[in-house]
Amino acid sequence: MKMLSLAQRALQPIDTTIATTLKLAGQPGIISMAGGIPHPDLFPVNKIKNLIAEMLPEELQTSLQYSQTAGIPALREHLARDLSEKWGVSLTSEHILITTGSQQGIDLLGKVFLDTGDTVVVERPTYLAAIAAFKNYEAVFEEVTMETLSNTKALENVLSKKPKFMYIIPTFQNPTGHTWSEETREKVALAIKKTGTLIVEDNPYSELRFSENQTLPLWAHIPNQTIYLGTCSKTLVPGLRVGYVVAQPKIIALMTMMKQSIDLHTSTFSQNLALKLMTNKNWYNSHLSRVRNHYTQKAALMEMLLTLHLHDTATWETPKGGMFFWLQTKTNTTELLEKAVHQGVAFMPGAAFYANNPDPTTMRLSFATVSDEEMEKGIEILKEIL
Amino acid sequence: MKMLSLAQRALQPIDTTIATTLKLAGQPGIISMAGGIPHPDLFPVNKIKNLIAEMLPEELQTSLQYSQTAGIPALREHLARDLSEKWGVSLTSEHILITTGSQQGIDLLGKVFLDTGDTVVVERPTYLAAIAAFKNYEAVFEEVTMETLSNTKALENVLSKKPKFMYIIPTFQNPTGHTWSEETREKVALAIKKTGTLIVEDNPYSELRFSENQTLPLWAHIPNQTIYLGTCSKTLVPGLRVGYVVAQPKIIALMTMMKQSIDLHTSTFSQNLALKLMTNKNWYNSHLSRVRNHYTQKAALMEMLLTLHLHDTATWETPKGGMFFWLQTKTNTTELLEKAVHQGVAFMPGAAFYANNPDPTTMRLSFATVSDEEMEKGIEILKEIL
Repeated sequence: MKMLSLAQRALQPIDTTIATTLKLAGQPGIISMAGGIPHPDLFPVNKIKNLIAEMLPEELQTSLQYSQTAGIPALREHLARDLSEKWGVSLTSEHILITTGSQQGIDLLGKVFLDTGDTVVVERPTYLAAIAAFKNYEAVFEEVTMETLSNTKALENVLSKKPKFMYIIPTFQNPTGHTWSEETREKVALAIKKTGTLIVEDNPYSELRFSENQTLPLWAHIPNQTIYLGTCSKTLVPGLRVGYVVAQPKIIALMTMMKQSIDLHTSTFSQNLALKLMTNKNWYNSHLSRVRNHYTQKAALMEMLLTLHLHDTATWETPKGGMFFWLQTKTNTTELLEKAVHQGVAFMPGAAFYANNPDPTTMRLSFATVSDEEMEKGIEILKEIL
Repeated sequence: MKMLSLAQRALQPIDTTIATTLKLAGQPGIISMAGGIPHPDLFPVNKIKNLIAEMLPEELQTSLQYSQTAGIPALREHLARDLSEKWGVSLTSEHILITTGSQQGIDLLGKVFLDTGDTVVVERPTYLAAIAAFKNYEAVFEEVTMETLSNTKALENVLSKKPKFMYIIPTFQNPTGHTWSEETREKVALAIKKTGTLIVEDNPYSELRFSENQTLPLWAHIPNQTIYLGTCSKTLVPGLRVGYVVAQPKIIALMTMMKQSIDLHTSTFSQNLALKLMTNKNWYNSHLSRVRNHYTQKAALMEMLLTLHLHDTATWETPKGGMFFWLQTKTNTTELLEKAVHQGVAFMPGAAFYANNPDPTTMRLSFATVSDEEMEKGIEILKEIL
């Protein structure tokens, strides 16, 4: 083959941790606390089977045909209504874009806003596939820690340098499990307003809360400057690839134009199925309760096991929702992974979650898919090797 | 809202013809010969319903879970085997990437190969959403006509300027319906080899042939320099968004890395369904026959109606497959569209299909979805207004 003349963006070293992890997680015999993968026993397989069986031929035909780039109207309308009620705001379907998973929302934001060398502010640490997506637009990163975020002066200083946007996960963060306090949200909203910064609020986990307390998204604090990313991947199923963006109509229109040349539209079939599941209100609410119960119990067990086995080799914050514990250890976890997999356990080395200057002594543990017995065994192995 | 600071690529004027058309095509009462949309009566709705009903819970769980970025292994293996047999080549699953429709393949090629200002060679005219996708990577275009393609010297002259790649649709082209002769294929393959050019061969329509004659793709002529884009959208259903790329493993690996940050992976459910449909060999072959028969008959009827009504206002080439007739008229068809829609008929103005210097007197007519009566009425209306 002739020498390939690649684009600059394709010449950068790219982190393949997710791909590797998705492969690891699939190997039989490995106790995987690596991926952020929902438990398949929570998938509503029978409900989905029944909904499809009940579809009339005409509906199925429409579900298998091309559809509008912004998403099927009924799903956009449902999300506008549902989120308006939940957040106490007033959305129309013009505020909603359906995406092929929320990952596509992240990519589209890069496509609409980022030129080579533009700055994106991200949390330290943050979601690794967001780092990869923005890197593919040749962005550079400015990291903010939780200390910076809750220090108005320090934050305003960062934002005054006019980054293209700040990408944040304020609720049950991936990877840390951390949730911003109401006080932090208000402070950050003020600094955003003052500096005129655009915010990207990624919120895949908020429905996986371990208590009744619902946290309002930053969108509700400052709708004119926030672009919100939501998904059905954690609440329903990830394999359908249905996510959504909530933003001012002007931004939605720009993102829709870009999406058109990226994949024309998200699977019509997936969208219709997600719509049917979410509008089946009673069923959906009891499904969400079941999902929350599962993760609440798994998190409590992991907390107990960590306290029992890793109290002198690691520190962590107890998450209030989501899928993860984030451990600060004394070991290089990237180097540890191979040994761990050899012993039959997988985790996510923390280094992949830093946009700049990785801290290799951190690690992310997911409690989402392992059985109680596997979790016990897995954390015992970690105790031995840490 | 604060003034948005957009990326350069988002500031260019973007052609919204497809979006507008998808909307037009959906309006009741309009006879639409505009979109390249397959006839929904050809969708295997019962087969799909039955396949889903037969899925065991475990299989359904796996189909609803996250999966590998490059595609589910069984589908990649099936395509490798099937295309090897059809083309007389030797593919492995490492040669295959599953994409979210073949549109995503086009976008990914931009992402892997194009920097601002890079040149892409395209046919004049060509697929409008490919133009849009490459424009979003700030590429510039060099157009080649059929005359240039069959003139070795002229073609070598264009290719010697080292474009990043040449994007072509050699079989039942969109929009012209034209198919390259064997002689042209051989000539072009030689020029490609000589100049070391990378080729992107987009081939969505080849299964919709009106005769038994199968045309080998350019891939089979020159596998080391060709990237092939295929899709299930025209043969099965478009709403599932399943396409694929065939290329050398090194290129597949690069595209897979990029896809990871774009949408993680294509719907697992869609992939599994497409796999089941295609591997149900007897059913699939008779389905393809049915699809071919439909389009063959529709094309013959349109040929007859055009000859009857438009012989003195337009010229065209009779397509040997696909979904389209391409008309050279004496009228500005972009200006004509509004009038046409007013009279109840929609077509695609040709101007949208040119990368540079649009010829506004061309138009594309699709015979794919209109009924015989609608086609007759539609072409009678065109006769009146042309």
